[in-house]
This record gives sequence, C-alpha cells and structure tokens, in this order.
Amino acid sequence: MDTRPSASAPSWKQTAYSVVFESDTRAGQLFDIALLAAIVLSVLAVMLESVRSIEARYGHILRAVEWLFTGLFLIEYIVRLLVVRRPLAYAVSLFGIIDFLSIAPTLVALVMTGSHYLMVIRTLRLLRVFRIFKLGRFVGEGEFIVGALKASRFKILVFLTAVLTLVVVIGTLMYVIEGGQNGFTSIPKCVYWAIVTVTTVGYGDISPTTVLGQTLASVLMILGYAIIAVPTGIVSAQMALPTADRPGAKLAVCHVCQASGHRADAEFCWRCGEKL
Amino acid sequence: MDTRPSASAPSWKQTAYSVVFESDTRAGQLFDIALLAAIVLSVLAVMLESVRSIEARYGHILRAVEWLFTGLFLIEYIVRLLVVRRPLAYAVSLFGIIDFLSIAPTLVALVMTGSHYLMVIRTLRLLRVFRIFKLGRFVGEGEFIVGALKASRFKILVFLTAVLTLVVVIGTLMYVIEGGQNGFTSIPKCVYWAIVTVTTVGYGDISPTTVLGQTLASVLMILGYAIIAVPTGIVSAQMALPTADRPGAKLAVCHVCQASGHRADAEFCWRCGEKL
Amino acid sequence: MDTRPSASAPSWKQTAYSVVFESDTRAGQLFDIALLAAIVLSVLAVMLESVRSIEARYGHILRAVEWLFTGLFLIEYIVRLLVVRRPLAYAVSLFGIIDFLSIAPTLVALVMTGSHYLMVIRTLRLLRVFRIFKLGRFVGEGEFIVGALKASRFKILVFLTAVLTLVVVIGTLMYVIEGGQNGFTSIPKCVYWAIVTVTTVGYGDISPTTVLGQTLASVLMILGYAIIAVPTGIVSAQMALPTADRPGAKLAVCHVCQASGHRADAEFCWRCGEKL
Amino acid sequence: MDTRPSASAPSWKQTAYSVVFESDTRAGQLFDIALLAAIVLSVLAVMLESVRSIEARYGHILRAVEWLFTGLFLIEYIVRLLVVRRPLAYAVSLFGIIDFLSIAPTLVALVMTGSHYLMVIRTLRLLRVFRIFKLGRFVGEGEFIVGALKASRFKILVFLTAVLTLVVVIGTLMYVIEGGQNGFTSIPKCVYWAIVTVTTVGYGDISPTTVLGQTLASVLMILGYAIIAVPTGIVSAQMALPTADRPGAKLAVCHVCQASGHRADAEFCWRCGEKL
Repeated sequence: MDTRPSASAPSWKQTAYSVVFESDTRAGQLFDIALLAAIVLSVLAVMLESVRSIEARYGHILRAVEWLFTGLFLIEYIVRLLVVRRPLAYAVSLFGIIDFLSIAPTLVALVMTGSHYLMVIRTLRLLRVFRIFKLGRFVGEGEFIVGALKASRFKILVFLTAVLTLVVVIGTLMYVIEGGQNGFTSIPKCVYWAIVTVTTVGYGDISPTTVLGQTLASVLMILGYAIIAVPTGIVSAQMALPTADRPGAKLAVCHVCQASGHRADAEFCWRCGEKL
Repeated sequence: MDTRPSASAPSWKQTAYSVVFESDTRAGQLFDIALLAAIVLSVLAVMLESVRSIEARYGHILRAVEWLFTGLFLIEYIVRLLVVRRPLAYAVSLFGIIDFLSIAPTLVALVMTGSHYLMVIRTLRLLRVFRIFKLGRFVGEGEFIVGALKASRFKILVFLTAVLTLVVVIGTLMYVIEGGQNGFTSIPKCVYWAIVTVTTVGYGDISPTTVLGQTLASVLMILGYAIIAVPTGIVSAQMALPTADRPGAKLAVCHVCQASGHRADAEFCWRCGEKL
Repeated sequence: MDTRPSASAPSWKQTAYSVVFESDTRAGQLFDIALLAAIVLSVLAVMLESVRSIEARYGHILRAVEWLFTGLFLIEYIVRLLVVRRPLAYAVSLFGIIDFLSIAPTLVALVMTGSHYLMVIRTLRLLRVFRIFKLGRFVGEGEFIVGALKASRFKILVFLTAVLTLVVVIGTLMYVIEGGQNGFTSIPKCVYWAIVTVTTVGYGDISPTTVLGQTLASVLMILGYAIIAVPTGIVSAQMALPTADRPGAKLAVCHVCQASGHRADAEFCWRCGEKL
Repeated sequence: MDTRPSASAPSWKQTAYSVVFESDTRAGQLFDIALLAAIVLSVLAVMLESVRSIEARYGHILRAVEWLFTGLFLIEYIVRLLVVRRPLAYAVSLFGIIDFLSIAPTLVALVMTGSHYLMVIRTLRLLRVFRIFKLGRFVGEGEFIVGALKASRFKILVFLTAVLTLVVVIGTLMYVIEGGQNGFTSIPKCVYWAIVTVTTVGYGDISPTTVLGQTLASVLMILGYAIIAVPTGIVSAQMALPTADRPGAKLAVCHVCQASGHRADAEFCWRCGEKL
C-alpha cells in the first residue's frame, strides 16, 4: 500500500511524511529513535504503575508522565493523519489502530473511570521496535533471520501440526491414566500439561503421580528432548544454505537473470548459467 | 498393500474409493479436509465434555454432537468397508481398528453404561491429520523432515541408548545418595527424576536436598544441557546435506565437472555452468 | 592392551576368548546379546526390589532371580579370568572391577547382612550396553557420534569452563542479593540454583523473590537460552564437516597416504595431493 | 593499550612483567596456572565459609586461608603496580579494580567490621580463568567460539530484541488476563514469568490458573520451543562456515582454481590438487 502523499501535496507534508513514516533520511532515523525511546519510557511507566508499592509512593509522578506521553503520542497521531495520503487507510491499519488505542484510554479516563486498565494496550506500541531493524547495520541481519524463518515456514508448520497432535493424543491418554486426579481434571488441562512437558518448561504445577503416568511422562519428555532437534535442524540447515551475504560470496545477484542465493564459491549462475 | 478395488469392480466403487482413500482427485482432497474438520470438531467435543463446568451446562448439546459425529463416522466406516477390495484387511489394519474404536464406545453405550469413558479413543483419529501432508505444498516438506529423521534413525537410537543407560545409572546412584528420602523412594522413581532432569524439564516434584545429591544433580543437568547438542547436531547435519533426496533436486553431481552441492532448483552447474 | 590368549594357548581357550571378549564371530555376537539381556533383566530385578509394594509381594521371586543372575555372572567372571592372557590385568581393569562388584554383594550377604544395599552397583554393568555398538550397523553410527564429540572436546571444555565460571559468579552475586533468604542459604546452594537455572531445568525448589534477584535471574535465563546455541553449534558444525560416510563420498581413505576426512566432492587428497 | 615497561626499564622489571602479565614464556605460563589455582582455592574458601555448618566447625581454618590468600594477592597486586609501565592505567582498568577489590575487604576488616560480606567480590577474580585460554591448545578453540559469537552478534542482538519485546507484550497481556492474582501481581512480575516460560526454565513459582492464561502460556511455550532454533541456527551456521578464521587455516581460496572450503589442515587443494 503506497501511503506516500501525492507529488502535488505541499512540500511540508512530504517532508513531514519522510520524517514520520520513513527511515531513509537522517531526520527520519532520529525521529524513529526518539519515538522508540518515548515508547520504551511510556511502557516502563505503565509497568511501574502496576507495582503497588511504587504506585503508592510515585503514583502522581507516573500519572504526570502518562499524560506527557499521551500528549506526545496524540500529536504524533494527528501528524500521521494529516500527512498520510489516505488518512482512513492508515487509521484502520494494524499500526494505526494500535497508535489510536495507546492514547484512547487516558483520554477516555477524563470522562469515565475504570478505563485506566486499558493502558496496557500501550505496550503493543513496542512492536514498533521492529522498525529499528530498518536502521543501518540491522537491515541485513533482520532480513536474514526473517528470511530463514519464512523459507522454513511450511516445514515449521508440519512440525507444529505433529507436535499439537502428539500433545492432544498424549494429554487424552494421561486424562484416562491419572483418572482426573492431581490436577489432571479435564482433557484441556491434560493437554496443557503435555505442552508444558514436551516443551521442557516443566512448571510442576501439575505432575503425574501414578507409575503408568510417570512412565508416559518419561516417554513424552524424551520425545520432547529429541524432537527439539527438528526445528533447530530446519532453521540451522536453512541458515547454512549458501547465500550471498557470506564472506567470499561472489555476487548477491546474477547480473543477467537477477537470481540470488548462489553458493559462496559459485562461478556460474545456477539459474541461467551466466558467468558471475 | 494394494487395497484398490479390482478393475472389474463397479465404477461407483472405484470413484468412492478414490474419494475416501486417496487424495489425488479434487473430490478426494475435499473429502480429506472435511474428514479432518469432522475429526478435529469431534475431538474438541470430547475435550469440552471432560470439563465439569461445561459438561454441566452444555452436556446435552455435546451429547447430540457426539451422536452426530458417531453417525457420520459410522457411515464413513461402512463405506470404507464396502469399497475396499479386501474389507478384512482394512478392518484389522491400524487405521481400521482406530476407525472402529472411535465409533464403538457410543454404540456400546446404548446397551451398557460406563463405556462412555472410552470415547477418548476417538482422539487417536487425530493421527489422520498426517494425511494432510499428502496435500499439495506439504508433501515435500513432510517427506523432507521424515526423510532426515529416517536417515538419522540409527544415530538417534545410539543416542537414546546412551541417555537411557545414563539415567538408569545416575538414578540408581541417587537412590543410594538420597537414601529413599524426599521422593527418591525407589529406583524407578529416581530414574523418573533423572529423566525429568536430563531433559531439562525439571518439574520440581522431586528434587535433591543433600549436598552430594545436589552435586550429582548439577553434573546431570550440565550433561543434559551439553548432550542436547547431539540429536540437534545429528538432525542439523542431516538436513544440511546437499543431496538428491531434497524435493525436486535435479542431479546430485554435474555430469561434466562432477561438482555436487547444487541448489535443489538449480538448472546450471555452479562450477562449470553446464546445463544440469 | 592386548589381552588375547597367546597362540600357544589351548584352542578351547582361544575359542572361549573370541566368544566372551570379542564380537567378530556369530557366537561372540550371540553371547554379547545374551549377556546384555541378562544384565538388563538383573537391573530390572534390582529396580523392582527397591519398590516397597512390589518387594512385599514378590520379594522371594526377586531374590531367587537375584541368585540366578549372581550365579550366571559368577560363571562368566570365572570364564573371563580363565581365558584371558593376563587375569590380573583384567581383574583390575574398569570392567573387571565392575564385573566383580556386581557379584560380590550377593555373595557377601551369605555371611554378612546389610551389604544387600550394594546390589545397585550391578547397574554399572549396564555400561556394557555400549558393547552393542560394536555389533553390525551401529559401529559406524556410534563412531560417528563419539568421533564428533571427541573432535569437539576442547571446544566443549572451553564452553564448560565459561559456563562454570558464570554460575559461580552469578551464584555468589545472588547470595548477596537475596541475603541468605528463601533457600539461598549458602554460596554452594546459590551456585546449584544458578546451574538449575542456566541449564533451563528450573525445579523451582529455590527461586528468587526480590526484584533485583528476579532481574538477575532473568538475565541468567536469557543467557542460558542463548548459550545453549554454542555446544549445539559446535557439534552441528563438527557433524556437518565433509566426511567420507556421506552419500557421494569418493573414498574413505586416500590410497597413498591413508588420510581420511575428504570433502564429499574432493578430487584430490588434501594431505598428499594424490588423485582420489 | 600497551602496558609493557619501556625498553629502558631495568631488566628485572621486564622479566617480572613477562611472568606476571604475559603467557608466552614457560615462567609466565606457570605463573598463570599457579594464580588460577590460588584464585579457585580462595573462591572455594569463600564458598565454604558461607555454609553455616562448615563455618561453625572450620571457621578459624578458613579465616587463616583467607588471610593467606589476601597476603598472596596483595603481593601480586603490588608487583603488578611496580612492573607495569603506567600503574594508574592498570589500577583503573577492569582487572585492576577487581584485583584491588578482592584484597580490600579483608584489609578493611582490620579497622571496621561488617565489610567481610564484600569478600564475595573475590569471586570476580575467577574471570581471570579466561586467561587460561591463552595457554597452548585452547587458544584456537577459545578464539573459534568467541569469533563465531562475535560474527553473529548483530543477529543475536536482533533475536534478543524480538524476544524481549515478546515477553513484555505477553507479560502485560497475562497481567490483564490473570487479573493480578496467583503471583501475577504486577507487570514486571508477569514479564519475569514470561521470561521463565519462554526460556523453558519453568520454575513453577508463578503459573497460570485461568483457562485463557493457560492457553496464552501454551502459545508462549510452543513459541519458546520453536524460537530456540533461531540462536542455535545462527551459531551453527556461523560455525559451519568453511572460512579462514578457523584455527590454522591455510588459505581461504586456492590460488589456482579459486576453490574454497578447504580443511583447516589441508596442504593440497581438494579440487585441483595444487599445493596450497
């Protein structure tokens, strides 16, 4: 979706857009960093306010900070609405909704009590932290990780399906074996226990007490211990694939057919056979 | 085992067979997806029924759903028996037995009480979810994972043997060290504890209290932390192999320069540029 | 150490030696499997005897089984002493001592009570399970894993040193932070807690309650989560190294200089430059 | 920073410097090992002193040991100050401060009580253990691991940022869902719980009790189970790189055929057989 203001828009709009929405210019990068700092600080304030002892002593300061950031974010939101080409499209986009929801609760609190609780939605603004990966050195690294995960998404999906089936089947078996005792009170709870176990988290809030139950749990644990190798292997193998950003790589992209993903020591393009 | 109806069978039988047993035709794929949805829904119903509070309020609806799915699965079972070439062979196959057991309890409940508990067997039908890997994009991915695990099966077996020996030896030592106290009441329980520890699950339902016990536990934990690297390394190395068993791989070796390690979708050799 | 009987020994000795000590002949393999089964069964008997409820009911059977296996192992031990070239060398070797200790407690129990507890030493005989890796298909797989671990031993040692330093430093800090409360009663206990945490076992028998303690624990957990990548990476990289048992490998060993470990696609020996 | 004494310094200073600060000479290596042993022993003494039962019985011995090591470390500290070219630069460097702090508490205890608690700072001297990696065989291995981590540092930073954002967002959601009950009393505590869960540590001191909470926890666990693959994949892929930064690597690329991916100890090119 191209949200850039049209070429006929006043130049201040275009400048403001490049600062607020983009990270190519120096001003845009500074804005991104300042915005990130403001978000982190406002989230910290929300977090501290939830601690009773801190709220009792510094509550008035935290509320002032809250109003300060709400003011800043309100200004930012209005600017975003003004400079974007189609304000409605932005307003109903994921980030548009999060931006709105992060200022709404404080404003609503002026006329209504109880909405204060919604402040935590502001935390979602933290997702903007991923914008920072568009800055400088991190671009390639972020793309590398996301790329490897994207390329493995079907394999990971197959793996997750297998794991989910496993936990449902074993959770149900456990419900029958432990007979609804010791926390294994319903199948969904048993499935929750199976997930806690297969992922090797192991809270211990529910744990088997019968011999058969402990035997099945042992099998599940060893399975979980062994199958952790599968997603790890998938991602490792994907990341180890010869890509262009490796040291010694000849060319990121073939100059003829634009294919990428050559071996580091390739001399010819794997797609068109052209000399690299 | 070829269970296809013979060529002389009536054509409706052959059509029904391809729909119910195969996934090559569009009808067959739709049937698979519909069956999968029915299985997931029926398993959800069984799971919800096990929650006391839900059962108290919506028990009558859940029982109606149960009868609905039992009816559908009964029809499916009968159709399978009718169209398959050798009904008995299907009936005693793994999936045949699971299919039968998933409808039997509800029917038996008509004449006998208490059999309701066996409903959980229906969960095993979830194993049919792996049929979905025969659909479209997932074929290759599923085969890739299963292939890597199969190729590593002896290595994984060796690894599991070593781990099992380790937990039995350390579990027995722990029984002597902790002296049958604090949950370490028998050797099998100590082995269970050793498995909980070496897999890094760590419920905490049993944990050592003596100095010597905590020392041995520390050694076991660090061992477990280190040897998780072994199955992961095995599977990673297997998956990273540039071989012909990758889906769609053209050639393992270039016929001109004998270079291997081509991309699965390469059309030209990366070393000599020859068409593969 | 060559323990084979000298060529001048009577032929029954040489035959017995090859059966009892080696796995090259069919008889030797059968003996190894039978011995392994006997060891597993005797360990199972010891394990079951430690369960109070089973001991109360089947104690007499288990004691009979114990005497049976003690008799068999005694015969085996005597045969080993007879056929080996230097009986003393065998008797003081690791396996010789284990073999002796696994029969001694039962025999000692004839004249003395209380030694029964030592029966658990018999579990150590399970280590003979690794003999099975000398049988058929497993030889290469076992060697592959052990080889990769051996090649990585210095890297793993460096890694373990770093982890041990980390847990001692953080454990000590935790002792100061939590002030000897809530289970953090001494530095060794805090180090134990740090090991439980960094390996992601997380029993929960000791867990921080102060804000600073939970913060430090969080740092340690994320560290532990991240550095698990190091041993895994080491072993994966080692296993992914081009070795000769890979499909497509030219030669396991150079016919001139006997060097192994060639790339799968190598055409020349890396050590002597000879054409493979 | 070059801290070597100037060439015009007396020769005993230069000898002492090479012994105390460097590990190239035999004397320097012996000093490093002796220092390390002294540090490990002094840390052990501090650890044992924190155990109440041991302190009650052997407190006087441990205090004598403490004075012995304080004396040795004081002498070492003075020698370091004497032989280094710029004593102030050493005194304010990280190791200089740690060296000073590890002797200060015992000395201060002569005129003031209560400072004894600071003894634990001595543990930080353990960081000198990493000096040992400069000795012999470990040089290359330590560099290999540190090199792989250094090369992956941006990727790991991106990964950690993503994980931290995730735990803050999910921790906050959990605070709303569990409603400040069952240990989820503040957002920082919920974030702590999220870290305990995503890293699969799972103490169980805080665990969700509501259905929605357990569902979100399950999602977080499976996420944590899956994303452990990311750092592992990053480091594995980095370590599997056939590059020149492997210890002893001859050449990254053959000067004749430009082939890369040679063994670290290869003397001939695997592709063309040319001497490297």
